[in-house]
Amino acid sequence: MATAASAPSAASLPASATARIGDSEFDRDTAVTRREPGVYDTELSAGWTIINAVNGGYLLAVLGRALADALPHADPFTISAHYLTASAPGPAVIRTDVVRAGRTLSTGQASLFQYDEEGREVERIRVLASYGDLDALPDDVRTTAEPPAIPPLDQCFGAQDAPDHRPVPGSSAIADRLFLKLDPATLGWALGQPSGKGEMRGWFGLADGRDADPLSLLLAVDALPPTAFEMGLTGWVPTVELTVHVRHRPAPGPLRVAITTRNLAGGFLEEDAEVWDSEDRLVAQSRQLARARLS
Amino acid sequence: MATAASAPSAASLPASATARIGDSEFDRDTAVTRREPGVYDTELSAGWTIINAVNGGYLLAVLGRALADALPHADPFTISAHYLTASAPGPAVIRTDVVRAGRTLSTGQASLFQYDEEGREVERIRVLASYGDLDALPDDVRTTAEPPAIPPLDQCFGAQDAPDHRPVPGSSAIADRLFLKLDPATLGWALGQPSGKGEMRGWFGLADGRDADPLSLLLAVDALPPTAFEMGLTGWVPTVELTVHVRHRPAPGPLRVAITTRNLAGGFLEEDAEVWDSEDRLVAQSRQLARARLS
Repeated sequence: MATAASAPSAASLPASATARIGDSEFDRDTAVTRREPGVYDTELSAGWTIINAVNGGYLLAVLGRALADALPHADPFTISAHYLTASAPGPAVIRTDVVRAGRTLSTGQASLFQYDEEGREVERIRVLASYGDLDALPDDVRTTAEPPAIPPLDQCFGAQDAPDHRPVPGSSAIADRLFLKLDPATLGWALGQPSGKGEMRGWFGLADGRDADPLSLLLAVDALPPTAFEMGLTGWVPTVELTVHVRHRPAPGPLRVAITTRNLAGGFLEEDAEVWDSEDRLVAQSRQLARARLS
Repeated sequence: MATAASAPSAASLPASATARIGDSEFDRDTAVTRREPGVYDTELSAGWTIINAVNGGYLLAVLGRALADALPHADPFTISAHYLTASAPGPAVIRTDVVRAGRTLSTGQASLFQYDEEGREVERIRVLASYGDLDALPDDVRTTAEPPAIPPLDQCFGAQDAPDHRPVPGSSAIADRLFLKLDPATLGWALGQPSGKGEMRGWFGLADGRDADPLSLLLAVDALPPTAFEMGLTGWVPTVELTVHVRHRPAPGPLRVAITTRNLAGGFLEEDAEVWDSEDRLVAQSRQLARARLS
């Protein structure tokens, strides 16, 4: 269990933290508009890019919001995305399909398309997901996992703590929208001294203070720097496939995210993320397969 | 690394182990016949059932074989399945769709249907997968994971080692087709003394001696008894979603499979499987979300 020392203190949160679920940057930038039944228009925001790429977790949240509207259940329980081509900020259309509507679980499919120079649709991502109602689950908890040992917020580091010339997370637009404080034990890469371990840990929130919900958990699992950095690799680590299990509605307050990689081989690696809320509940688990540029 | 003591000895393998990849029970029972481009007929075998259910890993292998034919690449790199309705032995049709054909990776979708009493198609499983060529991957290995500590084969136990009245794995048809020897440390449930830990480990092979290949790895990750048994639960643990990453072509010889569960809560649990080959390579990783009957 988390010790008292690792509990977040309200004083450490940004003073401007006033946005609410439903009325925040994240909600506006993941909004979808129903064009016709099952088809949604959206505008991918440039605010969630890192270098030139649109963050994969943000994209998954946009698709997740469309499916929440299209399916009879509102909460993603398990959602799997295959990333096909690189998304860019700008207009997109999401086409959904209800695969099965059950009493406690519904399964849906969704694809996000953008447009080429001739205006033809190009598929960016395809998703399969099963949705349910998190509030209808029984209260049983027999979790043997323990929250990650992350130092208190004021001993962790974010983009705003770094001199300009240091490559800590936050060198691009998404950093302005995240409240991200990394465990110094997984920050060696930013000082040119990667630990060699496939680990990345930190506190996670949204910069405008919006609390977490199931949709923002889809962002949280893919928002930290890649574990590959701590294994001495540099460069982009594009996601091939990402699956997220949302296991509980997160409590208000910052989240703790711990990512581990056990198998870097053959030019690919997996990243396993666990997300813990302020009440020490394991609220989400994810795994992705990504390409690594071996150097 | 595995110690010499844990290496399999050929003398421990079944004397009748003579089947080859392409000519074995597993190959015949996962065979698909192309009806028209992208559409395949198959016959789900009663030989891979446990209690009354068709094993989910076997079903994934059938779908995986259809996608290997439909896509320009032959090896599943990452395959995600959502299980919709219960499959039964008998005829089925698989409809595939090539989502994207790339140079090094291709993405496809497949659905398996069976027939209701009026002959209408009922969807059983839907799959999204990205395929590639395992033999084209670079040889780099920076894996930090270590093989599971499983005792030598002759100190592990299978269905044939049990008195008839004990509920060890193998009380149904699939047991006759598997060479499965469980680590005694994860067999407490069979003696009425579950360890309370979410762990299941064992040696895995096919009973007719067929070596492993990428398709049989899709079976291997879902062929051990559920970890829930060692956590004191009884009864069926139906899979909602299963994702498998195949990371390397397995070497000949028995596999070691280790499954762990960290989060049993709210009526669901995850099962993470690692599959190691006889050359100590981590050849597959999987995660599934399953329903648990909390008792």
